[in-house]
Amino acid sequence: MRILLDVMGSDSPPEELIKGGVAAAHETDVDILFAGNVQTIRAVLTRIHEQEGSHLSILPTTQTVTMADPPVQAVRNKRDSSLVKGLLALRDKQVDGFVSPGNTGAVVAGSIFTLGRLPGILRPGIAASLPTLSGQEIVVIDVGATVDCDPKHFEGFAMMGATYATALKGIDEPKIALLSNGEERGKGNKLNYRAYERLEASSLRFMGNVEGHHLLTERPVDVVVCDGFVGNVYLKAVEGGISAVTDLLRRNINASARAKVGAILMQPVFSVLRETLSYQRHGGAPLLGVNGVVVIAHGRSDARAIQTAISAARCAATADLNKLITKEMERENASGS
Amino acid sequence: MRILLDVMGSDSPPEELIKGGVAAAHETDVDILFAGNVQTIRAVLTRIHEQEGSHLSILPTTQTVTMADPPVQAVRNKRDSSLVKGLLALRDKQVDGFVSPGNTGAVVAGSIFTLGRLPGILRPGIAASLPTLSGQEIVVIDVGATVDCDPKHFEGFAMMGATYATALKGIDEPKIALLSNGEERGKGNKLNYRAYERLEASSLRFMGNVEGHHLLTERPVDVVVCDGFVGNVYLKAVEGGISAVTDLLRRNINASARAKVGAILMQPVFSVLRETLSYQRHGGAPLLGVNGVVVIAHGRSDARAIQTAISAARCAATADLNKLITKEMERENASGS
Repeated sequence: MRILLDVMGSDSPPEELIKGGVAAAHETDVDILFAGNVQTIRAVLTRIHEQEGSHLSILPTTQTVTMADPPVQAVRNKRDSSLVKGLLALRDKQVDGFVSPGNTGAVVAGSIFTLGRLPGILRPGIAASLPTLSGQEIVVIDVGATVDCDPKHFEGFAMMGATYATALKGIDEPKIALLSNGEERGKGNKLNYRAYERLEASSLRFMGNVEGHHLLTERPVDVVVCDGFVGNVYLKAVEGGISAVTDLLRRNINASARAKVGAILMQPVFSVLRETLSYQRHGGAPLLGVNGVVVIAHGRSDARAIQTAISAARCAATADLNKLITKEMERENASGS
Repeated sequence: MRILLDVMGSDSPPEELIKGGVAAAHETDVDILFAGNVQTIRAVLTRIHEQEGSHLSILPTTQTVTMADPPVQAVRNKRDSSLVKGLLALRDKQVDGFVSPGNTGAVVAGSIFTLGRLPGILRPGIAASLPTLSGQEIVVIDVGATVDCDPKHFEGFAMMGATYATALKGIDEPKIALLSNGEERGKGNKLNYRAYERLEASSLRFMGNVEGHHLLTERPVDVVVCDGFVGNVYLKAVEGGISAVTDLLRRNINASARAKVGAILMQPVFSVLRETLSYQRHGGAPLLGVNGVVVIAHGRSDARAIQTAISAARCAATADLNKLITKEMERENASGS
C-alpha cells in the first residue's frame, strides 16, 4: 500500500505535513510518496533523521497550487504542481491513495479532470466524519465539493455517505437525514424541499430533516446530507463554536491562579475533550464519487491530522470503497428509483 | 412603552415565558401584554403572586400556531391565535413591539401580511447578535426569514444589519462581510458570487468573504450577511459546537471526584463561560424590514432569554430603528447604487 501526500499549498508548513507522513509510515505498513519541492522535502527528511527509499520517497514537482488560486485555472495551468502530478500518479496506479491539505476546490476539479467520476455519480461529495459525544462519528456529506447542487445530487451524496458509513464505520443500514432549518417536513429552502422528496422516494433509510444544534450531542442519525456550500458552512461553524468555548476557557484559566489549580485537577477531563472533539483526531475527509482514493485534509493540519488523513486513505483503499459505491449505484439504478 | 409577548406555541411552557415577561416588567418601565390562553396566563400570574392591570395585561386568544404548522396556512387559518392577534395589535399601535418564541416561519409570514414591508426593502431578515470572545457582539443577518434569496436581497440584509449595528450596538461604519466557504474572492456558490459583486458596488463598508470558524474568537467584522437558510444552519451549528463542549465537560466532571473539585475551583471561569456564550444572554433577534418592531426569541427560551428578547424589542422601539432603516434605504437608493 502506497499513499501520496501533497506537501505544498496548505496553510501548514511542509515540515509539519512531512512529519505526519513519516509518522504514518512508521505506525502502519503504508509507504509514503511525498509530492512537492524536492529540496524542501529532502531537507526535512534529513533534519528528522529519515532515509529516502521505497518506504519514504519523493515525487519532485516545481509548482504550487495556492489557496487563492482559482481551482479550474490552477489545474489547467500548473501542470507541474504536486496537486496535478499527484493525481496523475494516482490515475496511473503508482499510488493507492492521494492525500492533500491544499486548495479543496482545486483538488476536486483536478480529481474530476484526471480521475473521472464513478459510473452513475453525477457530482462528487466530500464526506466529513464528525466526532459526537456518543463516541461514534457522524458522517456529513457534502462539505465542499459541489457548492451548487440540483436535488438529484443529494441522492448520490446520500448513497455514497451510506456506503461509506457501512464499509468504513461499520454501521448497518445507516439512518440518513437532510440538514435543514427545521425538523418538520416542508422546512428548508426550495432546493432542500425537492431533495427531501427524492430522498424519500429512494431505497435509503431516510429519516427526514435534521437541525444542526444537536447532531454532536444526540447523534440522531448516522449520515447527514447537504449541499457542499451549506455543509462547509456547517462544518466551520461547529469548529467555531467548539473553539469559542475552548479559547474562552484557556484565556480565563490563565488569568487566575485558583482556576489554574482547578484546571490541573480537571486535566483528565480536558484530555477527553481534546481526544474527542479535536479535528486532528478526525482529520481527513474522502472525496467520494471520483475514480480513485482522494482524501482532503484540513487546511491547517498538523502532523497528527495528516496521520489520520493517511489512515483514512489507507482504509478506503483497503475496503475498495469505490467498488462498493459503484455496486450500490448500479443496484439503485437497476431498481428504477 | 408596551410590549406584547406571545406565550403560546413555543417549545417552552407558557409559565416559563410568562415569568420572563414579568421579570422584564419589574426590571424596566415596560408594560407587558401577554397574548394567549387567558386561563393559563391568569393561573400563572396568580401562582407567582402577580396582579393583572395596565402593567401586566392579557390579550385573550383561543388558537395556537404550533412549530409544525405550515407558516402561510397557519397565519391564514388561525385568526384567533396569539401570533395573528398579537401582530394585529402591533399594527394597530396597541403595543410598541411584539416578541414571540414560536414558529419563526409563521411570525415572518404573519409580519409580512399584517405589517407590510418597509419602503425599499425586498425581503425581511432576522438579525441575530452572537456573543464573541472580544465582548462585543457580532450581527448575523439573515438567520431564517428568507430561505430562498436573490443576490439583491443581500444588499437589503447588509444595509439593515449595518443600521442595526450602528443604532443599537453603537458601532460606527460597521465592517460587513459575506459568509462563505472560503475567504478568497470567487469562493462561494453562484448566489454568493453574485451577492459579492452587489455588496462590493454598494456604499457599505464591505470587506469580502468570511468563514465561520473564527467569527466568535477573532470577530473579524461587525456584520455577517448570508441567506436565511445558510444563516440558520450556521447559527444552530455554532450552538451545537458550543453545547458539544459544555455537555462533554459536564458529563466527565460528574464522573470523577477529582474533576468535581477542579470544577469548583474553576467555578468563576464557568460563570464567565455561561455569561458570555449562552443564548439566554443573547436571545431575541429582531425581524428587520417589516413595518413594526418584531423580535423572535429562541424556540427553547427560558425566562431569562425572554427577558433579553423583550429588552431587544424595547431598544428597537426606543431607537426608532425602522425609521432609521427607511432613511438609510432612501439614501442608498437616491445615490443610485
